[in-house]
Amino acid sequence: MTSETKTYTLILVRHGQSSFNVSSQFAGWIDAPLSTIGVNEAINAGRLIGQYDLKPDKVYTSRLSRTIKTANIILSEIDRLWIDVSRSWRLNERHYGVLQGKKKNEVLQQYGLEKFKKWRRNYNYPPPALEEGKDSSISDERYKDIEKLEGVKLPRSESLKQVIDRLVPFFNSSIVPDLKSGKSVLVVCHGTSLRALIKYLSNISSEDIENINIPTAIPLVYKLTEDENGDLKPIQERFYLDEEAAKRGAEKVAAQGMPEPQDTRAFL
Amino acid sequence: MTSETKTYTLILVRHGQSSFNVSSQFAGWIDAPLSTIGVNEAINAGRLIGQYDLKPDKVYTSRLSRTIKTANIILSEIDRLWIDVSRSWRLNERHYGVLQGKKKNEVLQQYGLEKFKKWRRNYNYPPPALEEGKDSSISDERYKDIEKLEGVKLPRSESLKQVIDRLVPFFNSSIVPDLKSGKSVLVVCHGTSLRALIKYLSNISSEDIENINIPTAIPLVYKLTEDENGDLKPIQERFYLDEEAAKRGAEKVAAQGMPEPQDTRAFL
Repeated sequence: MTSETKTYTLILVRHGQSSFNVSSQFAGWIDAPLSTIGVNEAINAGRLIGQYDLKPDKVYTSRLSRTIKTANIILSEIDRLWIDVSRSWRLNERHYGVLQGKKKNEVLQQYGLEKFKKWRRNYNYPPPALEEGKDSSISDERYKDIEKLEGVKLPRSESLKQVIDRLVPFFNSSIVPDLKSGKSVLVVCHGTSLRALIKYLSNISSEDIENINIPTAIPLVYKLTEDENGDLKPIQERFYLDEEAAKRGAEKVAAQGMPEPQDTRAFL
Repeated sequence: MTSETKTYTLILVRHGQSSFNVSSQFAGWIDAPLSTIGVNEAINAGRLIGQYDLKPDKVYTSRLSRTIKTANIILSEIDRLWIDVSRSWRLNERHYGVLQGKKKNEVLQQYGLEKFKKWRRNYNYPPPALEEGKDSSISDERYKDIEKLEGVKLPRSESLKQVIDRLVPFFNSSIVPDLKSGKSVLVVCHGTSLRALIKYLSNISSEDIENINIPTAIPLVYKLTEDENGDLKPIQERFYLDEEAAKRGAEKVAAQGMPEPQDTRAFL
């Protein structure tokens, strides 16, 4: 039986709808709470994971409440609150720089469609950074020792590329060893931190990742195995536990901040 | 300033009321859920910790849902869901052996007051053990690798002494280093696992600990410092954040399973 291929299960979940999703604001590192819909989405995510009989042995979250509450609700729903927990700023949402807290349609109006689209989806195009010392989202106590402990500078704005640069090393040093030890791992993080992980795991090009939108709280499953170099590779296409709901959710995400169809003339 | 005494803050909380507290059953390692009152008690515990401006940097819980939910509610209440989390079976409630699941007044009737009191409070008097292989509370998946990983045999019944024997090494190897690194630590566990910790920290005799009852969800604070051997010692008496409520709660715990005053003649 030793020649049998070992497979590992990684479950990725974007947090349920936050109050900033409702108001269509850029949240980034601002600690926006879950909305009531978000709480219900998290319950639903837990039920889906339970129905598929997936049993995470460890959960990872970012340091933001919306992923932590989503994870707690999921684990309560599947009666696995007792599993080990790890939280890291490296799973945080992309830092949106000066856009944080701004409404998406206002950013669109102020800066125009080209910049708006590039900031949201271009691989290597960070929004303008917040001024040093003027960013309450990174000066929060939850990040207080990171620069010293990890020898890094916390971001004041990030592109998708920069999210990958801070997230993938953490994935490889923390999550991969858990998977290889046979643990099923649940990662609850954010729209852009998930896009970073998916780009890496599915080897998606910098162009193609622009068109991938992650719905809130629909579990996305990777079945992985080790290749000849010991790297984890998907053995099949990643799949959502509810593909139909995921499609609707992704369309909603893609449309955020965009004018209703009848208003597109504003950008002609 | 190097000669100044460093003090460390340890906050101990017994989980909020569980469904087994309501029905006055021995829970032990059975995963009894919080009752509605228990949820509200946990909210209140969070508010007290917030009012006293105590800011835990790390939380420890047992592997049982009632401590985990209590901790999650407290952390949500003080907006510190983001702190690091550690869970261990070594903080679990005492294993109550064959008494688990039984009603306290039935145990009292069946075995008599002397045994009942000794099982509940005597330092070194475990209830009869559950038969090997017949204990669903320890065969649960959450404990599956412990015997292998830690080279221990999981209990099928425990005295307070045996709880101390498995808990104190964990306290010293995990929680003490966190405290010494300057972290304020919140420990949410159980009536008897807290008695074990308090006996150890306050150096209470095996006789005196019999009379100490821990109320549900009233935060109990230790201010500690290192003695000349590097051991942590209280610099003042431990105190509840709500002494009046703690007194009422402790009286309720002491009376559990005991007949109402007019019925004491049954035991004369």
